Amino acid sequence: MNENNVTHAFIKRYRQEITDYLGVHLNESVTNPPLLAAMRYSVLAGGKRLRPLLLLAMVQTLAGKVDERKLKVASSLELLHTYSLIHDDLPAMDNDDLRRGLATNHKKFGEALAILAGDGLLTLAFEWLADSKYSAPITAQLTLALAQAAGPAGMVAGQVSDVLGENQQLSFDQLKHLHKQKTGALIAYTAQAAGIITNSSTKRRQALDMFAENFGLAFQIYDDLQDVLGTTQSMGKAVHKDAEEHKNTYPGIRGLAQAKRDLMQCVTSCQTALVRLHEEGLPIELLNGFLDYFQLDEEAK
Amino acid sequence: MNENNVTHAFIKRYRQEITDYLGVHLNESVTNPPLLAAMRYSVLAGGKRLRPLLLLAMVQTLAGKVDERKLKVASSLELLHTYSLIHDDLPAMDNDDLRRGLATNHKKFGEALAILAGDGLLTLAFEWLADSKYSAPITAQLTLALAQAAGPAGMVAGQVSDVLGENQQLSFDQLKHLHKQKTGALIAYTAQAAGIITNSSTKRRQALDMFAENFGLAFQIYDDLQDVLGTTQSMGKAVHKDAEEHKNTYPGIRGLAQAKRDLMQCVTSCQTALVRLHEEGLPIELLNGFLDYFQLDEEAK
Repeated sequence: MNENNVTHAFIKRYRQEITDYLGVHLNESVTNPPLLAAMRYSVLAGGKRLRPLLLLAMVQTLAGKVDERKLKVASSLELLHTYSLIHDDLPAMDNDDLRRGLATNHKKFGEALAILAGDGLLTLAFEWLADSKYSAPITAQLTLALAQAAGPAGMVAGQVSDVLGENQQLSFDQLKHLHKQKTGALIAYTAQAAGIITNSSTKRRQALDMFAENFGLAFQIYDDLQDVLGTTQSMGKAVHKDAEEHKNTYPGIRGLAQAKRDLMQCVTSCQTALVRLHEEGLPIELLNGFLDYFQLDEEAK
Repeated sequence: MNENNVTHAFIKRYRQEITDYLGVHLNESVTNPPLLAAMRYSVLAGGKRLRPLLLLAMVQTLAGKVDERKLKVASSLELLHTYSLIHDDLPAMDNDDLRRGLATNHKKFGEALAILAGDGLLTLAFEWLADSKYSAPITAQLTLALAQAAGPAGMVAGQVSDVLGENQQLSFDQLKHLHKQKTGALIAYTAQAAGIITNSSTKRRQALDMFAENFGLAFQIYDDLQDVLGTTQSMGKAVHKDAEEHKNTYPGIRGLAQAKRDLMQCVTSCQTALVRLHEEGLPIELLNGFLDYFQLDEEAK
């Protein structure tokens, strides 16, 4: 990250806390050794922890502090995200050998265990939510929001469109819809969860939703651009794969220059959302620092 | 079913109601057409609905009536059960072509969509639970119980042991533990869920847990015996596969005669549990009728 020391310190601290939390509590939740090994391998493979960090940053913005329960909710989101990566990498899907610079789960443990590790992580995400020591109303709301974001009207539907959309040209609107489901829904959930946990006003939740929605779209455009502009080393995974596999991407459909403008427009909308939070009397420096992520001229974080 | 008309009528009525509920509400929950088609295909492929029926029968035994909310909780369990079948049938797992007399999901829709249909059903099960209109405390308890039963300390762990245990001889205790996780956990959940929904006393819940635990074990022994004794036509799936695939089974480890005695012992324990419910002043004819399922000399229901 750039000059923003608040965000930099927050990310450094909580990326470690989330990773520590995951490492300790996976061992408590899973007793079958091969299953535990396969789950730990992907969860602890050095992810950015972007989704849980966003969730915690939103909670901190709204409520001023992060505690153990929030860490559990944030970590459950990382379990769910990791499941989606393991299943997306499978031979029947994207057939990827490399993820975060390491062999993908099925390359390391075989397909059967990779599928089951994914199933286990998805289910455990709901177990951790239900067991997070929040009040029952908060738990029930979080469960519903996560299931809607991750399920067959959200992330899973997006992945279906992605798999079936290969080798056919999607329109810009179709591509946006695909990514709103596939990547956007889980990022939008970070705002919903933060609003639920902090019992925030509708006005604050709407601003946060606007931030998260545009952040999610920016995230996908940025990822597509990095696939064109980046190197395998900086990305920790194969690049230029999108074009080879005839994937529908923002640069492919919009052209490189327009995709960059689209990205900037999303970032601007995020900033507009932050202004609204600022008008609500909330500190916005922390969340503003997350927008540094979208600088294209430096290495992926 | 046999002479027990109460159970016969209950199963006939609610098997239809569950199937109708699933058919209608899947359409509301899933908008992506190929995903919906793949999910509907397996959910509506003529399953026995044993788990939701058991849950509803327990609720009726404890509380005397079944309503829309209970139907939703019961149906969510069938979603989760169906996901487990789809993933278990995959080429990387059991590699089955036939299920309930029809092509398995991946044979019909391809592996990618089958994996995603399973992921979608698992997630949707939690969405339906969270959206079942029960009070938040009941919802939160149901979510936790289902996640624990289905997750990496329950069903998923059992499937891992099953996949990795092929081609190696398990002991009787190892096999029992495997099935307690793989099949037993979800059946045990039916008793937990019924206890939660009806806010029953500890004594009643313990008796119900005893019934469900032994029912689950009986169910697996029966299934193994049917694989030896049954025909493809009566089972709706390939039989004698266990031996061909060097699966660990009760008849294989215990011998046919002892496996039959094991089955009868489980049924007797179920009856003991029912006596305890009877002593609590509850009607037990309905649940007792479910034990007819384990008669080996007639076709599988």
